[in-house]
Amino acid sequence: MNLILLFETDFSGEGHRVRLGGRRLGHLRDVHRAAVGDELCVGLAGGLIGTGRVVSLDSDAAEMEVRFDRSPPPPLPVTLILALPRPKYFRRVLFTVSALGVKRIFVVNSYRVEKSYWQSPFLGRPQVEKQLVLGLEQARDTVMPEVLFRPLFKPFVEDELPSIVRGTLPLLADPHAGEPFPRAVTGPVTLAIGPEGGFIPYETAKLLSAGFAAARLGERILNVEAAVPALLSRLF
Amino acid sequence: MNLILLFETDFSGEGHRVRLGGRRLGHLRDVHRAAVGDELCVGLAGGLIGTGRVVSLDSDAAEMEVRFDRSPPPPLPVTLILALPRPKYFRRVLFTVSALGVKRIFVVNSYRVEKSYWQSPFLGRPQVEKQLVLGLEQARDTVMPEVLFRPLFKPFVEDELPSIVRGTLPLLADPHAGEPFPRAVTGPVTLAIGPEGGFIPYETAKLLSAGFAAARLGERILNVEAAVPALLSRLF
Repeated sequence: MNLILLFETDFSGEGHRVRLGGRRLGHLRDVHRAAVGDELCVGLAGGLIGTGRVVSLDSDAAEMEVRFDRSPPPPLPVTLILALPRPKYFRRVLFTVSALGVKRIFVVNSYRVEKSYWQSPFLGRPQVEKQLVLGLEQARDTVMPEVLFRPLFKPFVEDELPSIVRGTLPLLADPHAGEPFPRAVTGPVTLAIGPEGGFIPYETAKLLSAGFAAARLGERILNVEAAVPALLSRLF
Repeated sequence: MNLILLFETDFSGEGHRVRLGGRRLGHLRDVHRAAVGDELCVGLAGGLIGTGRVVSLDSDAAEMEVRFDRSPPPPLPVTLILALPRPKYFRRVLFTVSALGVKRIFVVNSYRVEKSYWQSPFLGRPQVEKQLVLGLEQARDTVMPEVLFRPLFKPFVEDELPSIVRGTLPLLADPHAGEPFPRAVTGPVTLAIGPEGGFIPYETAKLLSAGFAAARLGERILNVEAAVPALLSRLF
C-alpha cells in the first residue's frame, strides 16, 4: 500500500479529517508502523493525490488530516479484451492491470475458457473491486478501472467490439503470429489476450475480421500474469 | 505445461522411450486428457525440444517414444540481481523469470528485506527447482536457470558484482530515477531490482558506484511480479 485510497464515506464530517478502520487501519499499524504525526501518501477515489497526517491512532481507528495537491498518474490509453483466466490467476491479473493503469477491461468468453470459471466467487463485484483497489494503492493511482464481463463471445465481437476498436490500434497477442509486437506506440490501443492455449481459429478469425492484427511478443508462451505487464510495457 | 520437461532418469533404458509418473502423469491425464497415439511437445533438460508420442497410459505411468529435433528458444542476455521478495511472491517470480528466459539470478539481501524471509522453506533447492521447471514448461524451454543466494549485500556488491557487470549494461530499476528505462537494447544487461520500498540510499549508492545507472519504467510503483516481466519486455 504505497497510497491509502480514501472514499467519501471515510470523511468524518469535519472537513479534511478521515477515519479509517479495518484493512487500512491494520496496514497502517502493522506494515507502516505509523505513529501520530506521521505523514503518508493518500488519494481520493477518482480524484487527487495528497498527504495524510496521522492525528490519532488506536486499535479501533486511525484519524488523519488530509490535503490533496496533485493529479494521479495518467492512465494507459488501452482497452483490454481478456479471455477469462482461471479464477486464482484472474484475481492477480485484476491487481496487476489496475496497478499498470488500465482503465477498461472486457472479460470475455472463449471456447477454451472452462465454463466453471464463470461461476467463481472471484467474479463478484466486491471481490473484483478489492483487487482493483489494492492495485491502485500499489501504483499510487486513484481512478478505478471498469471491469465488464461478456460471457458470450460472438455477440460481443459482432455488436460491441466495432465501436470499441474505432480510432484505436487493435492488437491480438498471439505467440504464433509472424509480426513482432510493436514498441512505444503513441495512440490508443485495443489489446486482446486469449485464454491458456489461445483463442481457437474461429475466434481468431472473428477478431481479425474486426480489424485486429496478430502480433507476437516472442516465441515463449507466457502465462497471463506475466503476459499482461510484458505486453503493456512493450506497447507504452 | 506447454512442454513436458524430461530428465535422464525418465529414460527407461530402451533408447527413446520415457516413463512418467507423478505430477507429469497427472497433468497428461487431467489437463491434456492425453490418449495413446497423441503427440505432445517434450524437451530434454538442458538440451533439445521435440515430440513425444504416447505409447501407453494408465493410472501408474505414461510411456512415450520421444524424438528431439530443434533448439529451445534463445536465453535473455541478462543477469538479474533481485532483492529477496516476500516468500509467496518469490515462488511466482521464480516461475516468471524462468518462463521469460532469464538464466542467472542473484537473490540478494537489502535493508528492507525482512530477516525472516531468509528462513522460508521456499528458498530450499527442491522448491526453487520446482518453480523453475514449471516456468520452463510454460515457455517451452529446457535450460534451467541458476539461482544464487547472497544473504550479505556488501561483500556481494564489492567482491562479486564487478565481474558480473563487466561487459554488460548495468541498470537499476528505480521509480524515482530521472532517466527512462531503455528499450530494445542489443547487448547483455545486468538488471537490479530492489525490495518493496526500494533499496535504501546506502545500497543505491553502492550499486551506482559499481557502475549501475538508475532508470524508471514510469511513475507507477509496480510489485515485483509485474515489474520483472515489464522491465524485461521493455529491455529485449
